[in-house]
Amino acid sequence: MYTFFQYNWQVRDEWFTWCEQLAKEELLKERIGGHHNILHTLLHIIDVEYSWVRAMQQKEDIPLDFSSYGEVHQVRELSHQCRDEIKGFLQSNEAISNERVTAPWMEGSFTRHEILHHIIAHEIHHIGQLSIWARELNLKPVSANVIFRGLF
Amino acid sequence: MYTFFQYNWQVRDEWFTWCEQLAKEELLKERIGGHHNILHTLLHIIDVEYSWVRAMQQKEDIPLDFSSYGEVHQVRELSHQCRDEIKGFLQSNEAISNERVTAPWMEGSFTRHEILHHIIAHEIHHIGQLSIWARELNLKPVSANVIFRGLF
Repeated sequence: MYTFFQYNWQVRDEWFTWCEQLAKEELLKERIGGHHNILHTLLHIIDVEYSWVRAMQQKEDIPLDFSSYGEVHQVRELSHQCRDEIKGFLQSNEAISNERVTAPWMEGSFTRHEILHHIIAHEIHHIGQLSIWARELNLKPVSANVIFRGLF
Repeated sequence: MYTFFQYNWQVRDEWFTWCEQLAKEELLKERIGGHHNILHTLLHIIDVEYSWVRAMQQKEDIPLDFSSYGEVHQVRELSHQCRDEIKGFLQSNEAISNERVTAPWMEGSFTRHEILHHIIAHEIHHIGQLSIWARELNLKPVSANVIFRGLF
């Protein structure tokens, strides 16, 4: 499972670099589908991953103020900060134990394994959305290939 | 890993049902990004999954003639037929053995584990693209949630 996180983080980092070619207006321009705009779709990915991992750790949720993130470097820094905080947990056996997970923002309880799958698929899905927006801007999207990344 | 395939197949089946509300012209209308149009993006997902699994089994590749697939029921039938053929292998220990995989359409060799990750992420990525096209048609896309699907 952890390899999927490494894949997602590598792809996400490439999207941050990709974003640098765009003006702030394009990054924050409201688009159809996804999470409003390019930059906040990336922020939403981080938010969901970080929130679910904290829920798995039974830590309280830290809501993000999306309006304070208008620059690529801010979102990249947050991404790296959250990643540094959660990667140890995600590599541990604790992450795949059978304990149930509940989240303050949602009804129900889930297995940790289920939440790991959920976080992984959530990011790949949104990245697929970014790839359409890239093509609509006449730009080549970041490759979504798992192969040729040196991950295995 | 197999749960991700079950997730992808469940979501894919829901997209086939979703497609039934659209006229053939909309399903085959050339769009920006993805694999040309809605129906052939789904066909491409099946093609890639089936081709890689056959490569893992050291079976020869069967190229698909995309022009003969213009109806949802044809693509759904192909999807079910391929799935029935590959699911036994994907559930077996053979699928996660350490043998190297080569494919006739590509340079290089890969681990089976790498190819499984590749197939899974490939489908989720393209499904994300379909979700944007759905919103552009003013239609609610199929949910991409892993949770609430009874998979765990």
